[in-house]
Amino acid sequence: MTAGSTAAPDPISVGAEVGPRVAVVGGGIIGLAIAAELLDRGADVTVYDPAPAGTDGAWHVAAGMLAPGGESAFEYPHLTRLLEASGELWPSFAARLGDVGYDEAGTLSVALTADDVADCAREWKHQKLARLSGSQLRDLEPALSPRVRAGVFAPTEIQVDPRKVVAALRAFLEGRIRSRSISDLSELEAEVTVVAAGCGTATLTGLPIRPVKGQVLRLRGEPGLLRHVIDGAADGRHVYLVPRADGEVVVGATQEERADRQLTAGGVHDLLRAALDLVPGLAEHEITEWTVGHRPGSPDNAPLLGFLDDSHRTVVAAGHHRNGILLAPITARLIADLVLTGSADPLLEAFAPGRFG
Amino acid sequence: MTAGSTAAPDPISVGAEVGPRVAVVGGGIIGLAIAAELLDRGADVTVYDPAPAGTDGAWHVAAGMLAPGGESAFEYPHLTRLLEASGELWPSFAARLGDVGYDEAGTLSVALTADDVADCAREWKHQKLARLSGSQLRDLEPALSPRVRAGVFAPTEIQVDPRKVVAALRAFLEGRIRSRSISDLSELEAEVTVVAAGCGTATLTGLPIRPVKGQVLRLRGEPGLLRHVIDGAADGRHVYLVPRADGEVVVGATQEERADRQLTAGGVHDLLRAALDLVPGLAEHEITEWTVGHRPGSPDNAPLLGFLDDSHRTVVAAGHHRNGILLAPITARLIADLVLTGSADPLLEAFAPGRFG
Repeated sequence: MTAGSTAAPDPISVGAEVGPRVAVVGGGIIGLAIAAELLDRGADVTVYDPAPAGTDGAWHVAAGMLAPGGESAFEYPHLTRLLEASGELWPSFAARLGDVGYDEAGTLSVALTADDVADCAREWKHQKLARLSGSQLRDLEPALSPRVRAGVFAPTEIQVDPRKVVAALRAFLEGRIRSRSISDLSELEAEVTVVAAGCGTATLTGLPIRPVKGQVLRLRGEPGLLRHVIDGAADGRHVYLVPRADGEVVVGATQEERADRQLTAGGVHDLLRAALDLVPGLAEHEITEWTVGHRPGSPDNAPLLGFLDDSHRTVVAAGHHRNGILLAPITARLIADLVLTGSADPLLEAFAPGRFG
Repeated sequence: MTAGSTAAPDPISVGAEVGPRVAVVGGGIIGLAIAAELLDRGADVTVYDPAPAGTDGAWHVAAGMLAPGGESAFEYPHLTRLLEASGELWPSFAARLGDVGYDEAGTLSVALTADDVADCAREWKHQKLARLSGSQLRDLEPALSPRVRAGVFAPTEIQVDPRKVVAALRAFLEGRIRSRSISDLSELEAEVTVVAAGCGTATLTGLPIRPVKGQVLRLRGEPGLLRHVIDGAADGRHVYLVPRADGEVVVGATQEERADRQLTAGGVHDLLRAALDLVPGLAEHEITEWTVGHRPGSPDNAPLLGFLDDSHRTVVAAGHHRNGILLAPITARLIADLVLTGSADPLLEAFAPGRFG
């Protein structure tokens, strides 16, 4: 942990007639959520993004699973607390944004073969969820293959549509998003600068954030084939299926330590094979979209949240890896607190940007 | 067979200073090949197509396998003679067009499992090709999976790039292709009209031609992974892999009795799964294109070639199903003969458009 992340910050114009001038670098879901929170709390905020209406962000590819248990079970221990805290904020965060596809039907985590069951068992046990048989699972989700052997129902693992979230945040921030590529933070004359540039944060700050490639397909068919999010293992391949109300089913995602944007034969094959093994009825669904995105990963795959250095003029909020959608509300709240009051919530302690240096 | 296909035709202006005025309806590979042959032989030819520079045609999707043996082994018996006759014309047809990707490396027909071997054995025997073991096949094509059990080498089953063929034919016919949608043949004032409109021939003529949907992917990687066309069976799934000199590999094709243009999860899965089962090294290839096309099928899946009726003013050349690329040269020659001399080659007898009525 660097000194910069805990030392008392310089006071800024909290409580003044006009709030502090804050620049947010990055118009993805993290940057927009922070900017919206800051605007809501009186700051004079501007978001900078090279393509403010673009679709290059990880949010555009992301399925939007909000899974505080599933994603974190064996990861960085402090991350679980942050994920859970953000999960608690989601209902009110979503309600303020309007229709963003927030759907609490929950997730069925399923395993196809005996080997898949063995692989999943540790996580299911960790989550303290009751094991369901194949026929119990098919009672809940009739489209599941008869070959599915076991699974669990995770009622707290829900979904939102990240594209709708970003659209709602953009609308809320209308007039405050500038089309501008920032190559040097000293260009900005704000009192505080928040760097929430995803993978681009690395070149702006020197912090160790790397792209983790994900290939994601979107299918479309008659609505109603699937009721729940399906998070499944099929012959050693992992896939999630996120059904939207309009008949779209998001199928994701590969995890590759690569920076390219190529859709590959092997990646698409693995996604489709696992999806069809688990839900054969998807075979006649149309493939409407194939996307490649990059999760911003850190060395421990937990985010970097806090002051960049002792000047306390630059705040980092990046490296959210697979949890950017889930962590948007808590990131927005804690970073806005830091910007407006200068004091760091104890939850932030484990996520200091300087912890790898 | 209708009387119209064999009765003596009205004489047309053969040998005149200016050749007969011929309208060709359809700017796909069949229409263009016929028009080019007619132009070459002195006719005053015009091609009509609603989108002359478009990519809706079956030729745009087709891989371009020229396989007189493989495609016809158990089909309409007269078709084999036509396929073989056209195969003999291809070398000179290609040479006149320039670089059209004509590649005589030949095809390896391979089978993954013992069941696949049993399924393929009848066709291999029919073709009188020597059975090769898996290791013999891998000597010829090192990228084949160690799981491939048996196969044959078919030296006469070669390839061409249909997109290059169409581009060369369009260039040859420059100034003679009109952007016009024909809904009624009586609109045209030519002495002879050739209907070569693929699936569109049905509505123009009332003939029983139906669309047979095919989904095809194009991959791209380092050139040289594959040396031969691979025509394979893998766990009951059929796939062909057509490698171009520039690193493109065409992966096809589904055969579906459907008219829609949807790429489906099941179709793409089946292609990729069979492709990767046979050639695992394709996994890292980029998917650069996914296309859906429609083969014009007839009730016996052999083409309809000849006069539409006794007036001898309308000639049909359609319904080539899976063999449109291979059959383009023989179709062009025989239809041009029919248009210019009025006499039908004996090869055409079995393909009279009226044979289903």
